Amino acid sequence: MLRVAGLLIALIACISLGAQAASLPAKANLCSACHGSQGQGSDGLYPRLAGQPADYLYRQLENFSNGARKNSVMAAIAGQLTAGDMHSLATYFSSLQVAFVPQTSAKLTVTELALGRELVTLGDWAHGVPACASCHAPDLGGVAPQIPGLAGQPVQYLGAALQRLKTSDDSNLAAATMQKVSRGLSADDIQAVAAYIGSLKAGEQPVVTRPVFDVDYHPVAQSPAAFTPPPLSAIPTGPDGDAIWQGLQLFKHTRALASDYVGNDLNCVNCHVDLGRQAGSAPMWAAYVAYPKYRSKNHKVNTLEERIQGCFRYSMNGKPPAADSAGMKALVAYFHWLATGLPVGITPKGAGYPKLPDPPEKASVERGAKVYAANCAICHADNGEGRNVRHAQVFPPLWGPRSYNAGAGMSNIRMAAAFIHANMPYGRGRQLTLQEAWDVAAYMDGQPRPPDPRK
Amino acid sequence: MLRVAGLLIALIACISLGAQAASLPAKANLCSACHGSQGQGSDGLYPRLAGQPADYLYRQLENFSNGARKNSVMAAIAGQLTAGDMHSLATYFSSLQVAFVPQTSAKLTVTELALGRELVTLGDWAHGVPACASCHAPDLGGVAPQIPGLAGQPVQYLGAALQRLKTSDDSNLAAATMQKVSRGLSADDIQAVAAYIGSLKAGEQPVVTRPVFDVDYHPVAQSPAAFTPPPLSAIPTGPDGDAIWQGLQLFKHTRALASDYVGNDLNCVNCHVDLGRQAGSAPMWAAYVAYPKYRSKNHKVNTLEERIQGCFRYSMNGKPPAADSAGMKALVAYFHWLATGLPVGITPKGAGYPKLPDPPEKASVERGAKVYAANCAICHADNGEGRNVRHAQVFPPLWGPRSYNAGAGMSNIRMAAAFIHANMPYGRGRQLTLQEAWDVAAYMDGQPRPPDPRK
Repeated sequence: MLRVAGLLIALIACISLGAQAASLPAKANLCSACHGSQGQGSDGLYPRLAGQPADYLYRQLENFSNGARKNSVMAAIAGQLTAGDMHSLATYFSSLQVAFVPQTSAKLTVTELALGRELVTLGDWAHGVPACASCHAPDLGGVAPQIPGLAGQPVQYLGAALQRLKTSDDSNLAAATMQKVSRGLSADDIQAVAAYIGSLKAGEQPVVTRPVFDVDYHPVAQSPAAFTPPPLSAIPTGPDGDAIWQGLQLFKHTRALASDYVGNDLNCVNCHVDLGRQAGSAPMWAAYVAYPKYRSKNHKVNTLEERIQGCFRYSMNGKPPAADSAGMKALVAYFHWLATGLPVGITPKGAGYPKLPDPPEKASVERGAKVYAANCAICHADNGEGRNVRHAQVFPPLWGPRSYNAGAGMSNIRMAAAFIHANMPYGRGRQLTLQEAWDVAAYMDGQPRPPDPRK
Repeated sequence: MLRVAGLLIALIACISLGAQAASLPAKANLCSACHGSQGQGSDGLYPRLAGQPADYLYRQLENFSNGARKNSVMAAIAGQLTAGDMHSLATYFSSLQVAFVPQTSAKLTVTELALGRELVTLGDWAHGVPACASCHAPDLGGVAPQIPGLAGQPVQYLGAALQRLKTSDDSNLAAATMQKVSRGLSADDIQAVAAYIGSLKAGEQPVVTRPVFDVDYHPVAQSPAAFTPPPLSAIPTGPDGDAIWQGLQLFKHTRALASDYVGNDLNCVNCHVDLGRQAGSAPMWAAYVAYPKYRSKNHKVNTLEERIQGCFRYSMNGKPPAADSAGMKALVAYFHWLATGLPVGITPKGAGYPKLPDPPEKASVERGAKVYAANCAICHADNGEGRNVRHAQVFPPLWGPRSYNAGAGMSNIRMAAAFIHANMPYGRGRQLTLQEAWDVAAYMDGQPRPPDPRK
């Protein structure tokens, strides 16, 4: 009965939203012929247009028209459209709210389910692949203005698009990112991702799940020169694994799970990429073996807990949880496990952010603004406010009242430049020049943010 | 002026103590001819008798007489004495309080000072050598009834005695222990120990000092199958080293430095031999890489701090210090440093106490009492109460109101047997048979102690 009621509410929601649809543009039939009268896509290679961000749809038409996205059929169609037509069509199809149903859920193998879900929710950073959900939103519904939704897209289209992107010579920004991502995916990965996304119900939010299958994992001593944290599938069963898993969840969903301690819109993973596992992104395994350690920041030897408290006070602009609080213990259990096999007290390769040389020219706020507009604003928004969609943070705010405060490490321009150079644009680290990284860090540094609580 | 005043007080103390000396025995001149009229020894090979424990002196005469300690001159002299003579002479010379002055302080090289002090206060466990001060008392003044003082002994005698013990076939218990110890000492070690002891003023207590000379120590990744903690000389300068050093001191002098938290006469080092560095003695480097970890004892994942709190609550029969207290932080800093180079989360060789097989026969309290009397009582005293001398704990109490409580790990007979077998008699681990270790553990387990605070 509850499910029926839920369905009714969903239908009513669709109808009422449908009522707000833009009026039918003159040339809509050019699209509908293949993409369906409601832009619902086909069970094949024609993607769903309904509900995609209007700006995204407009840019695709523009890209097809000017050759930045290569497709002979779409080039021919887009060539018949004026800018006004493109705008009308994009607005119209974006406004359509068409429900979709799972395409593949019954057909998924256990392996596809596990692999697809992991790639969607966590990615595969060892191969340079961020999680799909990182940019396309936790529910894969897309993020206006420019990032398309994946949920509801035909499985065949998703697979073909990922495969095509590996070798495409599309010249737009998104294609460059997705080319890097798709090249990190094997044929099996692509199959699993497409099938898993096709298994989702409308509005369903994929969540990181604790692997339940046993693995034959034996921790071994590892070199600090080339450390790999254990795979999530090696999280043990029993209470040790429960604590580790709790810490992982807290690391990922800090704002939601520790709302009393987080005063802004940030999560641990925003500065510590790939769940704190990524070398060059202040990985937690490196922090684990380093502390206790003296910090000039507070002129004392800091325990690991005190170092973590610093993150909550400055980066999270919040309140430090107690050293013996449940959340702190879970974080420490997670970090301890991440460091399995790593020697204590020896700085491993990839610790912190890579030390960045000084820029060729003095960092320029003006140049930085241009770097920001070209590379960062698509995700972090024009005013650095980040983007929340459907009650979820997708892209963290970089400045303003909901970002880190002036006492945070990232407020140091050298550290920000190092982080940016190593990790940004997300999933395409080391693409910016040294100068660009310093310039955009200077731009970011010049923006307002909450004050240093020490002052 | 202050120094003069101090000297006066010392002189007055000597005179007043001297007034209590036993009356001169008839055969005292047999001893005085070589050992001096006040038993002060000579500046050569004749040891000081004054102030030595009477029981010790008596046993030496007995050993010389029956050949358990071999010395032809002393055998001839002791052969002329009745048991009554031996008792009178021992009592008399023990009662003499004769001040002594430093013999070698001006002549000590920096190396002798550092090496001698380290051997006296810490030993060299890598070569099976416990600290001299562990058994001869922190001021090296000896521990009645059976352990002689070393302070004030002629340097030449000390060196010759250690050298002789390496190859002696003396058959008494003390010689067996000292043979093992002396064999771990090189000629340079013996020279340094003797010279360092000869540099001490009467009543001066040697203390572990933080090495001040720089060493070229580069931590390296180590195998969990054969781990060595860093040498004390590698403690860094600066605040990190200060914290490590503070933790080390607290580990050694827990009762004195954390008196609010220790409810009995134990220090951390009593169960964790060699400052927590000794494999097979629950070394702290192994604990450091193991925690956080689930413990069935309290049915939860324990942080390292919680595990340490357990020691204070049960083994120390005291009050757990807060997880973020200064003392706790210092201990964690020390343990972290001890684990330098050891891989996280992999159980290293030597962790905990070695798992002991079941005994050949069921453990017997009656047999255990005999094992105790023959091997343990010399240090831990007849009623397990341990020995404090001159306001310092020398040998920890094993039961009774000042020992660990019934909730401590050592209250588990299997754990006690494992500890005893691996580590006891002190400095001569693995000398007892498996059966003896279980029997004496059973004997100890049957004695009264403070209750488990959980009950």
